[in-house]
Parts: sequence; C-alpha cells; structure tokens
Amino acid sequence: MAQKFVSMRNLKFLLYEVFDAESLLRYPYFEEYDRKMLDMVLQAAMELANGFLWPYFQEMDRDQPEFVDDQVKVHPSVRGMMKEFGKGGWISAIVPIERGGEQLPHLIADSCQFIFAAANYSASAFPGLCDGASRLIENFGSRELYDTYVSKMRSGEWQGTMALTEPEAGSSLSDITTMAEPTDKGYYKIRGQKVFISAGDHDAVENVVHLMLAKIADAPAGVKGISLFVVPKNRIDENGKLISNDVVTSGVFHKLGYRGCPIVQLSIGDKNDCRGYLVGDPHNGLRYMFQMMNEARIGVGMGAAAMASVAYYTALEYTRMRKQGRKISEKDPARPPVPIIEHADVKRMLLFQRSVIEGSISLLMQCSKYVDLQKVSTGDEKEKYSLLLDLLTPAAKTYPSEMGILSISQGLQCFGGSGYCDDYPLEQYYRDARIHPIHEGTTGIHGIDLLGRKIIMNNGKAFELYLAEVQKAIEGAKKISTLRAYAQQLSETLEKLKQVTSHLVSISQDKGVEYFLADATHYLELFGIISIAWQWLLQAISIRKALEKEVPTAESNFYQGKLFTFRYFFGYELPKIEGLVKRLTNSDGLTVEMKEEWFSD
Amino acid sequence: MAQKFVSMRNLKFLLYEVFDAESLLRYPYFEEYDRKMLDMVLQAAMELANGFLWPYFQEMDRDQPEFVDDQVKVHPSVRGMMKEFGKGGWISAIVPIERGGEQLPHLIADSCQFIFAAANYSASAFPGLCDGASRLIENFGSRELYDTYVSKMRSGEWQGTMALTEPEAGSSLSDITTMAEPTDKGYYKIRGQKVFISAGDHDAVENVVHLMLAKIADAPAGVKGISLFVVPKNRIDENGKLISNDVVTSGVFHKLGYRGCPIVQLSIGDKNDCRGYLVGDPHNGLRYMFQMMNEARIGVGMGAAAMASVAYYTALEYTRMRKQGRKISEKDPARPPVPIIEHADVKRMLLFQRSVIEGSISLLMQCSKYVDLQKVSTGDEKEKYSLLLDLLTPAAKTYPSEMGILSISQGLQCFGGSGYCDDYPLEQYYRDARIHPIHEGTTGIHGIDLLGRKIIMNNGKAFELYLAEVQKAIEGAKKISTLRAYAQQLSETLEKLKQVTSHLVSISQDKGVEYFLADATHYLELFGIISIAWQWLLQAISIRKALEKEVPTAESNFYQGKLFTFRYFFGYELPKIEGLVKRLTNSDGLTVEMKEEWFSD
Repeated sequence: MAQKFVSMRNLKFLLYEVFDAESLLRYPYFEEYDRKMLDMVLQAAMELANGFLWPYFQEMDRDQPEFVDDQVKVHPSVRGMMKEFGKGGWISAIVPIERGGEQLPHLIADSCQFIFAAANYSASAFPGLCDGASRLIENFGSRELYDTYVSKMRSGEWQGTMALTEPEAGSSLSDITTMAEPTDKGYYKIRGQKVFISAGDHDAVENVVHLMLAKIADAPAGVKGISLFVVPKNRIDENGKLISNDVVTSGVFHKLGYRGCPIVQLSIGDKNDCRGYLVGDPHNGLRYMFQMMNEARIGVGMGAAAMASVAYYTALEYTRMRKQGRKISEKDPARPPVPIIEHADVKRMLLFQRSVIEGSISLLMQCSKYVDLQKVSTGDEKEKYSLLLDLLTPAAKTYPSEMGILSISQGLQCFGGSGYCDDYPLEQYYRDARIHPIHEGTTGIHGIDLLGRKIIMNNGKAFELYLAEVQKAIEGAKKISTLRAYAQQLSETLEKLKQVTSHLVSISQDKGVEYFLADATHYLELFGIISIAWQWLLQAISIRKALEKEVPTAESNFYQGKLFTFRYFFGYELPKIEGLVKRLTNSDGLTVEMKEEWFSD
Repeated sequence: MAQKFVSMRNLKFLLYEVFDAESLLRYPYFEEYDRKMLDMVLQAAMELANGFLWPYFQEMDRDQPEFVDDQVKVHPSVRGMMKEFGKGGWISAIVPIERGGEQLPHLIADSCQFIFAAANYSASAFPGLCDGASRLIENFGSRELYDTYVSKMRSGEWQGTMALTEPEAGSSLSDITTMAEPTDKGYYKIRGQKVFISAGDHDAVENVVHLMLAKIADAPAGVKGISLFVVPKNRIDENGKLISNDVVTSGVFHKLGYRGCPIVQLSIGDKNDCRGYLVGDPHNGLRYMFQMMNEARIGVGMGAAAMASVAYYTALEYTRMRKQGRKISEKDPARPPVPIIEHADVKRMLLFQRSVIEGSISLLMQCSKYVDLQKVSTGDEKEKYSLLLDLLTPAAKTYPSEMGILSISQGLQCFGGSGYCDDYPLEQYYRDARIHPIHEGTTGIHGIDLLGRKIIMNNGKAFELYLAEVQKAIEGAKKISTLRAYAQQLSETLEKLKQVTSHLVSISQDKGVEYFLADATHYLELFGIISIAWQWLLQAISIRKALEKEVPTAESNFYQGKLFTFRYFFGYELPKIEGLVKRLTNSDGLTVEMKEEWFSD
C-alpha cells in the first residue's frame, strides 16, 4: 500500500525557507549538524515510518488491544517498532550527546514526530511517551532513578507513561486521591486508582515506568500538595530481578478510535506493596509534570495536524481518480464525466484541508523553534521565547485538534458514500482524530488557560511579545506589493484582538472572573485563527521570495498551490473572526446566568 | 435502560404553541382529528419507540448486518418491529383513510418519525422507506402495481427501497447505466448495478420492492432519459407464488455508523431474467422520484436533529451527575467538587446543542406544516406553500445534518474521556450522525440546488415569499418590547442576505455560473443559520406570550430555558453570518481558478 502521508516538500519549505532551521546550526549546541545531516534525519524518519508504522495502521485499529488473562495484548508489531525506535536513537533525539542522545534541534525532531504520527498515530504514542517520561526523570529525578530507568526507556525495552488522571480527577487534578506514604527505606508506599493511562500496560515491553502524580500524607490541599513519583510496574529486587510492584491493570478502555494504543485503568497498591520513588522535591510534582504535559500538548497538536495530513493526501488522490458529473458550466450529458477535483466545491474542500494542515504545521514549528531558541539563549531572550511558547501552547494544541477534525471530515466528504465505508481509511481517521480535543487538557480547559492565565501573566508581557511578533510579519509582508492587502487585513484583525482582550480584562474587573472567562473557548478559537493567519502570512513572504526567481514547473506548481492555499485562508477562514469578535464583545454572561433547572425538559 | 431521547414538552410547545397544529384540524381533510387524538398518537409513538426501537439501539450497532450464505442478516428485532409498524398503521400514517391510511397531518406524522429516529435511527429507516416507496407507487403507478405491492409494504411484510445510486453515478444521476429493455409482455427487462441501497436486502421481510431508476433503450441522454420502475427482489408467478426476479445482492457495506440498517450492492438481471414494471410515463422517472427524495431529505434532517436530541439528553444527564472541579470564582480546594453542569463552559456546550436541536426541529416542523397547507389549499396558496417547501428543503436537510454532527460532538465533549469510550453511547451517535451530510444529496449538491435552482426559480418568487415569511416574524416580534432588539438583529441580517443574493446573481451575469456557484455551500450555510434564527424568533414570540401569564415552576423553568437558548442562538450562532457575508461578497473565484496540478506536493 504506497500512500503519501506527508509532503516532504512542504516540511522542507517550512523548515528551511520559513523557519531557517540552518540558522540554529550556528549556535554551538547544534554545531555538530549541517543541512545535509538534517535532511538525512528526515529521510530516515520517513523510512522508519514506511517500514514500521504505516503497514500496521489499519490492523492496529481492527485488532485493538484486549485485556486477556490479566495481560494487555497489543499488536505484535509494537515490540519490533519499539526496538527500532530505541536502536535508531529516536527516543533520545533531543537528548544531549553527552547523555547518549542525538542533540537534534526540536524543529527537526518534531518534524520527525510529525512524520511518525501521520504514518500511524497510535503507534507513535508508545516511543513518544518513553521520550517524555525519561526526560522528566533526567531533568528532575535523582542520579539513581536516572541510572535505573532511563536507558531501558530509551532503548524501547521499557515503556514510559504519564499517570495523572483518576476516576474522580480528570480536568481537576487538584482532586487526585492517590496517596504516597513515606517510609524510612527511601521509597514511598503508593495506593490509588488511575484511569485513561495511554500505553499504561502492554505485552510489547518488559516493564512500564509510570511518572505518577500522588499526594504525600498531610500534603497541602489542592495542586500545591501534589508530588511526582516514578512508579514501575515491576521493580528491581535485591538480586537485580524484576518483581511485581503491585500495580495491577484492571482493564482496557474500548474506544472510538486511537485504538492501536491501549488506554488502561490501574489499581495501585491494593496489596500495600507498591513502591514509588519521589522525583525532585515533595509537593512540586505538578510543576515538574508540566514539562511533559506542555510537550505532550504540542505533541497532540502535531498528531492532529499529522492525521489531517494523511487524510488529506488520501482524499486528494481519490478526487483525482474518481470521475463524477461535469463542470457546472459544461452540463452536456454527452460529454464524459470529469475527475471530481475539477469541481470548484471539491477544490474548496481540498483547499480548506490544506489551509488547516499547513497552517497548523507552521504554528507547531514556530513553537518548536521557540523551544530551540530558548535552549540556546539566556536572560531576557530566554524569557521571551519561554513566554511566547507558554502563550502559544493552548492554541498550538487546540487549533489543530479542533480544526483537524473538520479537515478530516471534509476529506471523508470528498469520498461521498465511500468515505463512510471501511473500504477506505477516512472513517478511521475520523474516529481517531476525535481524541485530540479531549486528551492533554480539553479545549475548554485550554481556553481558560489561555485567557485566564497566559494572556494576563507577567502583566500581559507574553501577549505584548506575541503582538510584536505578528506585527513583525505584517511589516515584512507590507514590503511586498502583492501581500500588502493581506498585511492590512491581518493588521486590522490584530487591532480587533487587542480590543477584545482589553474589553475582556475590563469585564474581569467589572463583573468578576466568571463573566471574564465565560467565553474563553471562543477567545481561544479567535486567538487560534489569528495565529494561523500570522503563520500563513509568514509563509506567503517566503513563497513570494521564491517566486521572484525562475523555478522549474514542479516547484512553480508547489508555490502556486501554497499561494492559493494562503489566499484561501485569508478569504475563507480569517473572516470567521468577525462573528467571534461580535460574540466576545457582548459579554452578557448568558452562560453564567443560565440555571441548571432551566435545562429541565 | 430508561433514557430520555426526546422532550415531549418541547414537541408539544412547537406543535401547539408555535405552529398551531389545531388550526389544521379546521380543514375538512383533517376534521376526523382533535387535539386529544393527536396527543394520543404522539403517546403511542413514544410507546412504540420505547418498546421496539430503543432497546436494540446499541445491539444493532454491535451486531451489524452481515452477508452470510447469499443472505443479508439483520438484527432479529427488525422483523417484529416491522410488523408492529405495519399493524399500528405507522407506515400509512399520512395515507388517506379511503385507502386504508390514518390521514394524519404531516406535522404529527413527522413528529412521530422524529421520535422513532431519536430512539433508533437505523431501525426507523426500514418502515420509513416502505412508507415513501409505497406512496410513490400509489401516486404515480398503475392500479395493478398498487394492488400487487402496496398493502404488503404497508403491513411491514415487504421492504420498500429507493434504488438510485450506481458505482459510477452518485451525485450525477444523469450517468446511470441500468438499462430497461421493453418487452411485449407488459414489463421491461432490467440489467445493471446499484450500490448504497439502504435496506436493499434483508432477512426480516419476505420480499424487497425496489423503486429503481433505469434508462429505457434509446432514451434521451442525461436526466431526461431516466424512468422509474418497480423492481421486486421476488416477483409473483402465474400461480401467485414468489419466485426470484434475478436481483442478486453482491454484498453489504461495512460502515462507520448507521449500522443497524444494511446498505447493499445489487446486481440486477445478470441472468437476463429481471422484470421491471414502469411507473407512470417513460423518461419521467426522476420527476416522480423527487417526491420520495424530497421527503427523504426532510427525513434526513429530521433524523439528524433526532440523533442530536438523544445525544443531548444523554449528555445533559451526565453533566448533572458528574462532579469535577469548582466554579472558577470559588477555587478553594477544600470545597467539594460541583456537578459539571454548573461550569459556564459546560452550560455553553449544552446551550449550543439545545439551540441547534430545537431550532432544527422547528424548521423541520415549518416544512411539515407547509406540506399540510399545500395539501389542503388550492391555486396561488398551494403554489406558495409548494415554493416555500422547495426553497427550504436544502436547508432543512443540511443545517441539522452539518450542525447535528457538531452538536453531538459537543455532547461527547461533555463526557470528557468517557465520551470517547464505548461505555457511553456518545461515540455511537458520533459515528451514526456522519452519514447525514452524505446521503440524500451531499451538502455540496444541496448548496448548488439552493443557489443555482431554488433561489432563482420562478424569477426568485420562492425567495420573495421566504423573505416575506421571515419579515412577518420580525414584525410580530417587534410588538413585544423584550424582543425588539432581536427583531432588529434579524432584520439587519435579512438585509445582508438580500445583498449577498443580489451580489451573487450579478456575479452570475458578469462572470458566469462557475463563479456564481463557487461558494454555494457557504451560501447554504448562511441561509441555514438565518432560517434557524427566524424559527427561534417565532419560538420567542410564543415563549413571551406564555410567560405573560402566571405558570407553575416546571413550566416556568421550561420557558426560561427556551428563552436562554433563543438568546444563545442570537448571541453565539447568528453572528457567524458576519464572516460568511464577508466571504460571499468577495467572489474572487479562488476555487474556480485553482488548478489541479497546483495540488501537487
């Protein structure tokens, strides 16, 4: 099954023409790399995806993980895939060379992650979790924890997880009840329940290492009393053997999609024999965990855009092959039917998908670049990139997640009735993608995070920095005559964003926090659209630069297509802010004042 | 499993307070009925739904139809359900009494259909198809066809279908290749392939009666050469026995959802022994079929709204039960968690769902009432209702179909991670609902139908009538002081609709039909939102009237909830037109001018 799931040309356009990845290589930290090596890394990722991920994409959905004889059984391909990821250094791609990693720029490592997710999102979650969990131990754990766990996680032999959610504590982590009782033996005794743990148990690895949130007895109430522990499924006894650590899987969830990756429920310490090892200081667990959570959020955005990408290329291929009807201006039934890609409404559906996908990837790469710049800079510079990243994370997670669903839905629509049947993979993408607005913080939570925290933090400093970045793109575009009108459109839009934001801050003062945040989800939507428009304007500058020179036909087709997609975004998607601005400046508190009993009948 | 899937209170509000169903009973045709009888019919529908549809909703999804030993096997409950529908007169609810029917107003019969679809959409398709197909024979077929087929279809013993789509002819019916060869024996010999035929074969009935489109040899090209035939799976031989009619099922499609109803592929006349019986005149088949298609389109809108309804009540119940977090203004972690329905963002999601659902049902009932009025009126009056119905059909099909998906998606989101798992039915609704923008004409087709045909037909007469109807609601609302601002909002919106429409008509003249219809899908979206706003304003007038009097608490809660939902629609949904108007007055022909080769890479 030869299938295009990613446009390598587009990835390289973004990496080298828009984000100037090569400029990173001038920093000493990345000086081991040159352009050719980066390209080889991307190529290797593509080969890995083609060899070990894509072939099992459908099978992993149809033979979903089952809990049989107290064991979670996953698709047999997972074991080999994990080993390949370990052997190839993919689980330590951004880890410093001195610690055995590849020391790659995030920009490149995240692009590889994008390729993996497009080929098989469920499968890519296993090594992804090993990566995040092992770096959490590396950054905040003791030397002993590092020595015991990290190398096995990076070789793909042991699975890493993030174990946060409990039956009664999902969006509200402050209510976790998993307890950690101190002992005088250097470990804590853990007892509790965790649910929805991705890759939380399976038979493709010898051990599972949970990065688990729990409360030490007598800890402060709420999030200030949460600590982080390493809680292995099997611990190492005095003889160096793995023995059960009293972490028992009680079942796997059967899900709408994302079926290749098991999501499990865990009972911890039922026999009072579960040992947990504190990471860092007590009561600081949520702060540490946010490193992994923030990365996971960007990862979800990446996965959402990646799924939309493969769905788009599948749909594109179909619209070129499938013949139906005639052009509206050529209705003579004696003429032969045309490929449906010739119909304007089908082109609209394709442009919509492409505008969402390529806009999303661009925003995600912008975040990756901020991570890299934050790493190699100091002082105010470092703070700047850190603030920008914090501010962008809710949108970089949510825009691709929400719009990716609509994008895939339009891809499915391109197939007509066939899209609804399992002869084509669109129905699977449609199911798979629905997880994204839920995991790693629901869309509602991210709306509150953006407006209630990120916009106002440091006296609005992050927001100021953001406005300046967008303004910079506008100034750049103004210098190109064919982009001036678009620069103006974004400039007016940015004014509206400022007005809406000031208005909401004043609501916060006049009417309080409930009214302030009532429409936070819509604010996030507005912020997301504007951020994608910013990214498209950045891309348009690079496109125009490229088209100044004579280019071969294939290249010219690529740039023309991008240009039309840019114009599509500004013509069809950006106008959606009008309704949102109207809503957000209303602030009548309708949803605050609506009473529960009025939902009766 | 006691589950609320429909608000009977809301149905009665719409039927009696908004649409004054009792006024229909003053026409001689409906004079057999009184209010009490109508209520009894609704109650009986609810009992049928509870007894024969709802209990099998999940099972019919999990044990989907399979093609085994040349036989399509459906869930065993279908046989009994069909008999119940037949026995209860539900398959002939709107048929005249003189022909053995119930002669119910469409307004009531469609409300019952809504109840059935909410309880189990897949199951409700079986009798629904019998109803439509049998009335097609009744209205356009010969006496002999009527006598042979109709009573068996109305008793639920024989299945009726609409057999239009072919492998190479879906949206473009003019390309069907199923052939009908005349004989001198009063029948035609049929040969061809049909795909995606709902209930096209199954083991719960003794026979299947296809209302099939085919072309008589030497017929004119295109849609003008399409004829309609009755093509039974089994025909009656000289001895009155059922024998095979050479209609062979070659397989069932496995689908994302809507699994209770088999969708089959048929090979017709492979042995040159398939007899088809012409309905009406040759080459007029598509015109006849449009009776069933238009009804089916309204039926799809109804089904989409019904699914969103049951998903909403399921989500509502969960948000009342599920506790998580504290109100934003009361963040003390020592306080107990609150039911999530107390969070403004959750109320927003619920109000969104309710505004979509109750707005959609209202628009669908508006259509049903036009059908009834058309039936009992003559001359200009009759033409008026007929034109209004034609104009509204694309929106009445599409708005619930497209927005129902988003509504169910928000219902799923109310469940968080649990919504993604099959412990709750939301994931099934999410899968089931995706069929609606596809079957009975895709959204793209309906956009072109609305703008390219309905708006401009009879020199824009239907559109003028529509504007007058909406204006009437605006005038009514202006008389109520609390509704004046909303009336004004809709009035301004209507002006914009007129401007957009004139603009597009001028584009048609200046730039031709491709540019005119390039954004027809967005025009349909705009028209849909405005039509729902119209319906909400009509509802608001009735709500305000009701609240003038003293009402008991339960009633007051109902009306307050409706009032907030109405305000939600005008505050959150109606502003979406701003972006659409901006787009639709752009007409840069972006999707017309985009070239196929620019989609490369």
